[in-house]
Formats: sequence, C-alpha cells, structure tokens
Amino acid sequence: MELVTINTPGLGDNSYVVAHGGTAVVIDPQRDIERFLAAADDLGATVAMVCETHVHNDYVSGAPALADATGAELVLPAGSGAAFRFRPAFHQEDIAVHGLTLRPLHTPGHTPEHLSYLLIFDDVPVGVFSGGSLLVGAAGRTDLLGSDRSESLARLQFGSIHRLASLPDAVALYPTHGSGSFCSASAVGGISSTIGAERSTNRLLTMVDADTFAADQVRRLERYPSYYRHLGPINRRRPGGIPTDPIPALNPAAVAKLIDHGVAVVDARPAAAVAAGRIRGSWAIELGDSFATWVGWLLPFATPLVLVLEEPDELAEARTALARVGFTDIAGVLWGMDQWTAEHNPVVAHRTMTLQEFVAAGVAPARVLDVRARSEWDGGHLAGSVHRYLVDLAESLPADLDPAQPVYVGCASGSRASVAAGLLADAGYQPVVLLGGSITHLVAMTAEAGSDRNR
Amino acid sequence: MELVTINTPGLGDNSYVVAHGGTAVVIDPQRDIERFLAAADDLGATVAMVCETHVHNDYVSGAPALADATGAELVLPAGSGAAFRFRPAFHQEDIAVHGLTLRPLHTPGHTPEHLSYLLIFDDVPVGVFSGGSLLVGAAGRTDLLGSDRSESLARLQFGSIHRLASLPDAVALYPTHGSGSFCSASAVGGISSTIGAERSTNRLLTMVDADTFAADQVRRLERYPSYYRHLGPINRRRPGGIPTDPIPALNPAAVAKLIDHGVAVVDARPAAAVAAGRIRGSWAIELGDSFATWVGWLLPFATPLVLVLEEPDELAEARTALARVGFTDIAGVLWGMDQWTAEHNPVVAHRTMTLQEFVAAGVAPARVLDVRARSEWDGGHLAGSVHRYLVDLAESLPADLDPAQPVYVGCASGSRASVAAGLLADAGYQPVVLLGGSITHLVAMTAEAGSDRNR
Repeated sequence: MELVTINTPGLGDNSYVVAHGGTAVVIDPQRDIERFLAAADDLGATVAMVCETHVHNDYVSGAPALADATGAELVLPAGSGAAFRFRPAFHQEDIAVHGLTLRPLHTPGHTPEHLSYLLIFDDVPVGVFSGGSLLVGAAGRTDLLGSDRSESLARLQFGSIHRLASLPDAVALYPTHGSGSFCSASAVGGISSTIGAERSTNRLLTMVDADTFAADQVRRLERYPSYYRHLGPINRRRPGGIPTDPIPALNPAAVAKLIDHGVAVVDARPAAAVAAGRIRGSWAIELGDSFATWVGWLLPFATPLVLVLEEPDELAEARTALARVGFTDIAGVLWGMDQWTAEHNPVVAHRTMTLQEFVAAGVAPARVLDVRARSEWDGGHLAGSVHRYLVDLAESLPADLDPAQPVYVGCASGSRASVAAGLLADAGYQPVVLLGGSITHLVAMTAEAGSDRNR
Repeated sequence: MELVTINTPGLGDNSYVVAHGGTAVVIDPQRDIERFLAAADDLGATVAMVCETHVHNDYVSGAPALADATGAELVLPAGSGAAFRFRPAFHQEDIAVHGLTLRPLHTPGHTPEHLSYLLIFDDVPVGVFSGGSLLVGAAGRTDLLGSDRSESLARLQFGSIHRLASLPDAVALYPTHGSGSFCSASAVGGISSTIGAERSTNRLLTMVDADTFAADQVRRLERYPSYYRHLGPINRRRPGGIPTDPIPALNPAAVAKLIDHGVAVVDARPAAAVAAGRIRGSWAIELGDSFATWVGWLLPFATPLVLVLEEPDELAEARTALARVGFTDIAGVLWGMDQWTAEHNPVVAHRTMTLQEFVAAGVAPARVLDVRARSEWDGGHLAGSVHRYLVDLAESLPADLDPAQPVYVGCASGSRASVAAGLLADAGYQPVVLLGGSITHLVAMTAEAGSDRNR
C-alpha cells in the first residue's frame, strides 16, 4: 500500500491518493484532476473510488470530474444532500476496495454530515482521513454554515476530535485542511501527524468539555472568503471539471467593449508591473498562491473576467486557480499593457517603495494604511498606523484620506497592498505600495532606526 | 403540551401528534393523513412540522402529503437520500418549534440514516421518538436493507439502543414500530414505555457487547413482506396521499375483461362467504388488520386490482390499507358474488370446518396443512401435521398432496388458511379451512380429546 499527499498551497488543502495492488482511492480531490490521475499512474494504479469527507465550502470539488474520467465509484457522506447519484457512506459501515478498507466515522462539526475515513490495511488501522475534523494542532472551523450553527457544531466537533483521538497512537492523521486553509479554526499546524502526536500536542484535545472548546473555537475564528457560501451548493449539484475551451487573446478594443458589458478585469501581473500602469478599474491581484482567494473574495461570485497576463504559461495557472473557487467564465486575455497604452486607453499608475526606502524617508506612521487581517494586525503593527482589512477597504475607502498626500499601503508582502493601491488610485488618491517584506519587518526596522537615532 | 399516539393496527406502527400552544408536530404519519389532521384539530393545533425518524420500508409515508395539506415543514434525517426538498435533521442540532424542541439523535441500526427525536419541553427531556431503534422490550430489525448489511447495522443498533437507554429514566419511549410490526426484530413488546422501564426490563439492554447482540438479533429474525423492498424507493420519491378518484362498481363482464388483461382479483369478503364460492383465480384475502400485508406480500407489487366486497364502507377501508403498502391501482369493485354466479361465470368453492368438528371427525394429523410462520409452528403444532408457510405455499404447492383426499388447512384464525384454500382449490385439491381458532387451540383440544379417550 502506498499513499501520496497532494497539497494545494493556495487553498491550504490536501488531497490523498492511496494505492494497493493496482487500485487507487482518491480522497477529497481538487478540480484540477490531472494531478490525481498522474499520481495514480505513478503508483501503477487506476482510480477505482473517489471519496469525499464532506461537502466542501472552500473549493469546487474535483470528485465528480475524477469519477467521470476514470469510471470510479463516487462516495459521499450519506447526509451530504448532493443532488446527483453517489454511493452514500454511512457511519461504521465499512467500504472495501481491493484489499483496502475505509471505515466511515461520523465526525460532525466542520459540517454536520462530515465523515472521516479510517484506512484499514491487513486488519490494521493505519491512517485516518480526517477532512475538516481533527487537523494537525487544530480543528476544522464550525462557522462555515452560518454563525447560528457555529456553537452547536463546535460542540459536536469536540466529540468528533475526541472520537478520532481515541484511535490507536500509530494511526497517521491525514487531514484535508492544513495550515493556510481558511477551513482551519486557527492558523497553527502542519499537514501531517499521527493520532499519538496529536494526543500529546494538540491543545484542543486538552480542553475539559465541549462548552469550553466551543467558546474557544468560536472566539478564535478568522473571517473567511465570501465565495465560500456559493461552493457548498455548487458541490451538491455535481460540478464538472475545469473547462478546456480555448480562451481568446483580446485586443484593447475588445477589452474595452467587454468592460462596457460589465466584465471585470483582473490584472494578474507582478506588483511592480501593475504599479507602472494598469487599466482603470482593473483589480490588481497578482498571480500566486492567494490569487484565486482574492478574486473570489473581492469580486462578485463567478463574474466573467478578462485577465491581464504577461507569460503564456500563466493562463493555465490562473484558469486552474480560478476554477477551484468557482470562477470559470474567462472571456479573454490581454497579453501585457503595451498595446492598451499605445492606443491611449485609460491607464492608472501608483508608486511603490521598498521598506528600506520607507524607513529612510521617515514617513509619519499615521500615513500608513495596513490592509492585513485583524489577527495579523493584533500580532504586531506600526504604532499610529491605520488599519483597514483589504476586504473592508474594497467595500468602502476610509473617509478621512487626504487625496493631496501619499498614503503608504502595506501588508505581509505587497500583494494585498497592490490590490488596495489599485482601488485607492482609481478613486483619486496617491497610494504607495510597500514592497519587499511585511509590516512586521517594518515594525522591527523602525524600532531599530529609532534606537539608532536615539544613540 | 399534549401528545397523542395514533396506532395503525394492521402494520403495528405508531404515529405521534405533539401539540403545544396551538402548534402541532407529527412524527412518522401514515398515508391516511386525515387521522393526524383530526388529532391536531382535537388538540386545537395546526400542524407546523412533520418529522420522519427514518425512511420507512413497511409503509408508504404520509409525511409529504401531510406537509402539503398543512404547509408544515417536512423534516427528514439528513442521510435519508430523499429526492425532494426537505429540511435535513442532523445529529444533535436542535429543532425548535414554538416552545417545543426536538433534538435529533443519530441512532443507526434499523436503517443507517435513522434518527430518534428527543422531545424537550421547558428544558426537560420528556420523551423520545425512537422510530425503529429502541422499542418496547425489543429493538428494530436490521435486515430490511439486505442481509449483507444486517450484522453491521445490528452492531450499530446496539450502540443506538444504549445511547437511548442513557437518557433519564423518566423520559417516555415513543417508538414507531410496536408489537405486530414486522419492523420489530422480535414479537414481544407493547407500544409505550419509559427509558427507566426499558433499562429494567428490556433483555436486549442486558447483552454485554455488540457482537452478542448482533448474533442474537440476526438469529431471531422473522421473514418480512416482499413489498418492503419497494417502499424505501417510493418514500424517497415523495409519495402523495391516498387517491380520491371514484372507484367504479363493475359488472361481471367488466371483471372478466379486466382479468383477461392481467388485473388481479382480491376477494376481501369474510372467510365463510368466500368458501361458498369465489371467482376462479381470485385471492381470498379477508378484509381485516392483515389484509394489506397479505395483498402486498402475495401479489406482484402495485398490481392493478379488482376487489370483491360486500358492504359499501369496506371500500374506503380496503383502499386506505392498500395505499399504505403502495397499492393504489384499484380498477373497480364487484359488489358481492350474486350476479357473477347468476351469469354462470367460473366459481370455485371450498369447505370449512370448526376446530370442534375437526376434533370430532378424528382426522389424521398428516392430513393437516399448517400455513403459519415458522416461529408460530415452532411455538407449538399438531404432531404429524405438514408445515408450509403461506408465503411459500403461494410460490409452489406441496408436491405430494392427494387431490382425491381433503386437506385440512389451519393457521391462527382461518384468514391465512382461506388464502391457502383458494390456491389449493384453484389447483384442483380439496381444501377444508379450519375456522374458529388457532392451531394452538387445536393442539390443546386434541391433547384433551386424546386423554379423554385414554380414560
């Protein structure tokens, strides 16, 4: 028996391929199914079964597409409410697949229908696919189905993680949600562990009762992307794979026409390139791990898009990332800004500055707009700076900004600050994106600069 | 808060109406919904919610029809797999209805999606609707979804009945399946109890582990009617109420024509009337509590029927009973046999005999055909008599019957014996139905007669 973990960094999720005797089972596959087909192929196995631990809210499932591509049986929790044909998995009713056994364990909390699958090989439980229940050093959040169910689901999650923790020490823990996933109730934790290790180190398992646990979990919850609420319903309606129809290259006139028709433009080029000039009204969301999350969070769900890209291979990457979060309507691509600019179409630029330049310039902290999340801000920020999370900034700009003065926008890398700068520049302000590091670096650097000055 | 139990004797099932402050909740209603509407009305309440404990296999649910008639919310276990819109009930996620709370408890076993509903009033758990899980002195059978799942579901049932038994002593037990229901794994038990009483007296709760329990349950299972396998799928496809279109009275020519077209004739008149003469090939199934069970078990599922009846009010009774088990296609009624006989259509008669006459006649036991179930036979039978369960007799007649000799057919009342007699008479044998008591009485009477002779 062999097991391969396939991580999807942007979402912080894991999928798993287990193979034995030429047969593979895939757990919680993403929508770009080629990775799982290739992994099974590498293991000399064909995919005979695709299992979902729960109805996912953070990505469009690849399970139906993978089942279609392979003829594999599609297994979902009995309570998933999926509006398509699937084999319902019921608590404790074993599923046998060519020498492997999956034992569904009802582990409600992250979602109410949630199952974990205990992997049994040669009558020995060797691992458990814990989905969004017990995670490495954490547990799946319980508020994705609405804040009204958050506490009762958290109490159920308490029972579920203890049920999993009662498995033998040597059982490997294979969670779907890992560090970086908004589905985790907290930011700690890695992607692999064992039941024994969790029992020794996962602080959530030390809590004395469900009420304590629930209060703790609900208190610690980070906000999650707005597109989540659309993906459960999509996953219940049998989403297909990623579209393969060609995406046309557009000329500036075609782009302008699409904009007139309400299509949104996402400029996915690097922050520095975007700063030099982007289409007025376009979203400056740099291609990278968080690209799709920000498109999904900031734009109306599944809105048709024009992408601005530089390199040919970026298109497949963007398309895959967007499809994972339910955006499949890509009207076309504008390859670079040269022709747009040459034709004197409306362009907006903004300045950038390295952290070093910022410190050297001695800018007053009150001119700094910090667009990181509340938890990052709480973890350390520039005293006197202004905080507004990018998500809130996209809803409405701060009322007291001075259009005559530069506003220095920072985050953890410059990515989110670029998005914010685009919004500010379009509104007539003078944003300056802080590049080359995080606000936390800036805090350290200004403290140092201050102590230098005081010497 | 008031609670009314509504029993359906023929099926051995209970439905419940709980009312409080003008609002009623109905649990597991049968298809003849007028009873529940009337009960709610008597309680001065309108039905706001209809809850199912599980996908029923022994009757067509009245829940969708009742929801349609009242606008009530339809609540089913999340894992029911129903192909219509319903509110999914999830384990431990409370459902509030105007001052009442129903707490779903996942209690798999009878079926895998099975929920019990703990009724909470003024923060006090007062009763539990246990469906086919913990019954009075018994537990719901676990083989209705196939013998391959019977044992694993029985192990789950062990956990489920103990989960319910851990509720406070004073909690009333409101099971759906009671004595007389084929859904009970054994024949013992009444229809109402408390958790405390069950913990003291239900022998199943004294078993030490799930394996012992499962072995015991599977060993004790009685056969169940063949129509059961059709009702789960029907209940997942939102069955309507009982049809109300008029059923025509037929003349003999119309009946003969329908017979030619494959319609089955069910002669539902009393055993004595049927013995005097019935349509050749008709099923002699007396109207009464077991009428629909036998129609459902012996005839092809949902086959169109002509009924032979005597009294006008029998039609509604027959129609209701048949609709409960999925037979709604009633082509017409032949009112009595007079016209059929007068027109010289084919009639078959058979003899009847009281138990007293039988004993007085000194018939050899080897001439007695006992058509009761195996468990009844095992509980006591006439030494030397022949056993063949009615269900098996309908499949094929015993090969060694002598058409030149009378065969004395007995059961517990004469009802099943009449059905058997019809089959035998049509095949050219000379059945004599033993009326006026059960074979068990006959055993006692012949023992007495024997000891009288020996004096």
